Amino acid sequence: MDNLITFAGGTYGRWKVEKVLAVQGDTLKATDRVDVVTGSSSRTSSQPVWTLHGFLSNPRYATRRELDQLKAIQPPLHRPEAMHAALIPIRKTAAWWELAQDERREIFEETSRHTAIGMGYLPAVARRLHHSRDLEEPFDFLTWFEFAHSDAPAFDALVHALRATPEWKYVEREVDIRLVRDGSE
Amino acid sequence: MDNLITFAGGTYGRWKVEKVLAVQGDTLKATDRVDVVTGSSSRTSSQPVWTLHGFLSNPRYATRRELDQLKAIQPPLHRPEAMHAALIPIRKTAAWWELAQDERREIFEETSRHTAIGMGYLPAVARRLHHSRDLEEPFDFLTWFEFAHSDAPAFDALVHALRATPEWKYVEREVDIRLVRDGSE
Repeated sequence: MDNLITFAGGTYGRWKVEKVLAVQGDTLKATDRVDVVTGSSSRTSSQPVWTLHGFLSNPRYATRRELDQLKAIQPPLHRPEAMHAALIPIRKTAAWWELAQDERREIFEETSRHTAIGMGYLPAVARRLHHSRDLEEPFDFLTWFEFAHSDAPAFDALVHALRATPEWKYVEREVDIRLVRDGSE
Repeated sequence: MDNLITFAGGTYGRWKVEKVLAVQGDTLKATDRVDVVTGSSSRTSSQPVWTLHGFLSNPRYATRRELDQLKAIQPPLHRPEAMHAALIPIRKTAAWWELAQDERREIFEETSRHTAIGMGYLPAVARRLHHSRDLEEPFDFLTWFEFAHSDAPAFDALVHALRATPEWKYVEREVDIRLVRDGSE
């Protein structure tokens, strides 16, 4: 599947793990590296310590206005200067998933300003969202971010701002894995 | 995966195929039976002619008010009297998937009254939606319906009403497989 991405924590991959922060709930085991692979199988020859899967899909909350604003300003992945990355798997509570679409949208944007907050950190921070819940994975979402070394403090501010929103009351598990690209891989 | 459902067209399964209607685009091969299996593998011993997969997920458009109305009136699957079923796989156009959430909601309900139309056929028609697009399947959605013999004309009216909506301009492939439960299986 071309829209399925596998993240494999182990000894292989171009991203070296800098630190693993247990933000909420059970953490993931710190590994030397994380490999990011398109498709369901890892190209790693050794056994990964953990693997997480998620698929790329259409936006679930953004309005036309928000999508157009994002498209005008959001950077692509793989910028040469973006040597830093974060993989942030989160799981939301059952209460979140029992909400209707209008209730989730209200909390996501009208109350928590999720997209608006993120927009304040563009074009510094590249972002790709992977959906995991429908695959019955341990997390609901895996978000991957890339940014330059000089934007690392701004990225910290971004995740702190999001964690302070009403939306984050519905987050029951969150791990924040910080990575640095290793040119030798 | 407990939320993954497989539909297998072949010689096995408790649902006998009555007819296969090619509504729009390429059809599916008519088989003797359709087997409905929880999980990714079919328990059928013979090779199915086709298999389709979809996952159960949270509603993507319904508001709290609509969800509460639906919950109050929608029947479960597997009612003894519901001897008839329809499996309707559809694929929507690329243009649909490029729309933002507010644009899709507007067409789905404010313009096409998808939920409101369906509500008019409750509690006669039981319905279960399976999402396939994120699995890179040939269809985006597989909808399964169950109803009694006496409600078959009402079910025909329901699908005709939906096919006349603006939402259906975004449907590029649709097959309508009508089935009858076979007590001997």
